[in-house]
Amino acid sequence: MNFIEKVERRKKEVGNALVVGLDTNVERLPERFSKDAEGVYEFNRYIIESTKDVACAYKMNSAFYEMLGPNGMKVLLKTRELIEEDIPTIYDAKRGDISSTAKAYAKAAFEFYSFDSITISPYMGSDAVEPFLEYENKYAFLVCLSSNPSAVDFEYHGTPPLYLDVAVLASNHAEKCGLVVGATVSKALDEVHEVSPKSLILVPGIGAQGGKTEDVVRSSAREKLLINVSRGIIFSENPRETALNYAKSLRI
Amino acid sequence: MNFIEKVERRKKEVGNALVVGLDTNVERLPERFSKDAEGVYEFNRYIIESTKDVACAYKMNSAFYEMLGPNGMKVLLKTRELIEEDIPTIYDAKRGDISSTAKAYAKAAFEFYSFDSITISPYMGSDAVEPFLEYENKYAFLVCLSSNPSAVDFEYHGTPPLYLDVAVLASNHAEKCGLVVGATVSKALDEVHEVSPKSLILVPGIGAQGGKTEDVVRSSAREKLLINVSRGIIFSENPRETALNYAKSLRI
Repeated sequence: MNFIEKVERRKKEVGNALVVGLDTNVERLPERFSKDAEGVYEFNRYIIESTKDVACAYKMNSAFYEMLGPNGMKVLLKTRELIEEDIPTIYDAKRGDISSTAKAYAKAAFEFYSFDSITISPYMGSDAVEPFLEYENKYAFLVCLSSNPSAVDFEYHGTPPLYLDVAVLASNHAEKCGLVVGATVSKALDEVHEVSPKSLILVPGIGAQGGKTEDVVRSSAREKLLINVSRGIIFSENPRETALNYAKSLRI
Repeated sequence: MNFIEKVERRKKEVGNALVVGLDTNVERLPERFSKDAEGVYEFNRYIIESTKDVACAYKMNSAFYEMLGPNGMKVLLKTRELIEEDIPTIYDAKRGDISSTAKAYAKAAFEFYSFDSITISPYMGSDAVEPFLEYENKYAFLVCLSSNPSAVDFEYHGTPPLYLDVAVLASNHAEKCGLVVGATVSKALDEVHEVSPKSLILVPGIGAQGGKTEDVVRSSAREKLLINVSRGIIFSENPRETALNYAKSLRI
């Protein structure tokens, strides 16, 4: 079963497109967890236990594990292993390099940590993407249009704007290649979907970053969307309740 | 002492601009080293011992450590600790994300692993760079123009080409922000240097990737260059001899 099929099956199972983002910043753990790698792991276990019947997928943000050194990477692995086999996983790592280096990053993501998919920074072009596409049943999401103010610096550069050229690159490998488009630029979802209609689109930026679910679910791309909420769920008062509420608004 | 000063002092000390790249792919270790994290560490120790009076700086390529999981990250740390305090270090990680994620990547690179500098993928704009510039005496190299064929996909996009806009971003923070320009596009070195004259320019692509030292050292940017050779040195018959030869041709 390839990644798109795995996502579609899971979407049917849970009836929503919610990705729970394990952006587990040790500095923001609730008081009852220790402020170290072990605390991050225990917190992740609690979040996964609380949301595993709701989440369409889990995304793990590499940065918050890397900042804890080798022990953080152990937690990355141990947490990934807590996620049940039928739930799609996304390694949010924004890797972007070429040739043997890109191959080594793909090995890390897909072989060592066994993630189903990864996010990629596309700056260096198709050479930075192709090593990730050589894996059967794995998937790469290219950063396309982000939700931060300085997205205008480069992502909109040129005519057509750079982000649409990134969508064209994804469309060339659409069975294995999706896109990341921020929720705060939700009108671009239609546009990107038109360029690469088979690509899954990972949408961060809901909640803490200001994106609204009602804008996103109106998109013509809605069947292809995976909508991530990280801090807005995991650091909320009641993560299970919050995840259920988001899931309700993301029945797409 | 800031990073530029550290590099300049070291350049005077060794009389060259050679960066030895510890792209230590476990699969390519010589026979006498074990094919695991421990072997990578022992190999790095051998390379550092063989080159520490020649190398202007060391660059460590994160991918080859990440692919070995948490033990690989232990080797990254232990190897970084082998490098003497007065030799500049570059964490070649091509990280590129925003807000709290970028801050966490900066923490990993500068606090946990104590590197002096890092390479950054600039796709998401200044927001992806600024968290790295908040550290005193640390430095960020933005990927600008790479040496791979698909650099044409996005790096040359628009008018002016995207890579020159990246150079403009670096020029806004030039005390703390350099650029990466591949040796195979050495004529772009002059152009990039003109846009951001204070920026150090890290030049990969010599040797294995086909770039030539004589093209690079003719550049008007030569005083700002740090020229990396990885595989061409570390996997050569006699790494010390090879490093000395490269150093001779890089007296700039």
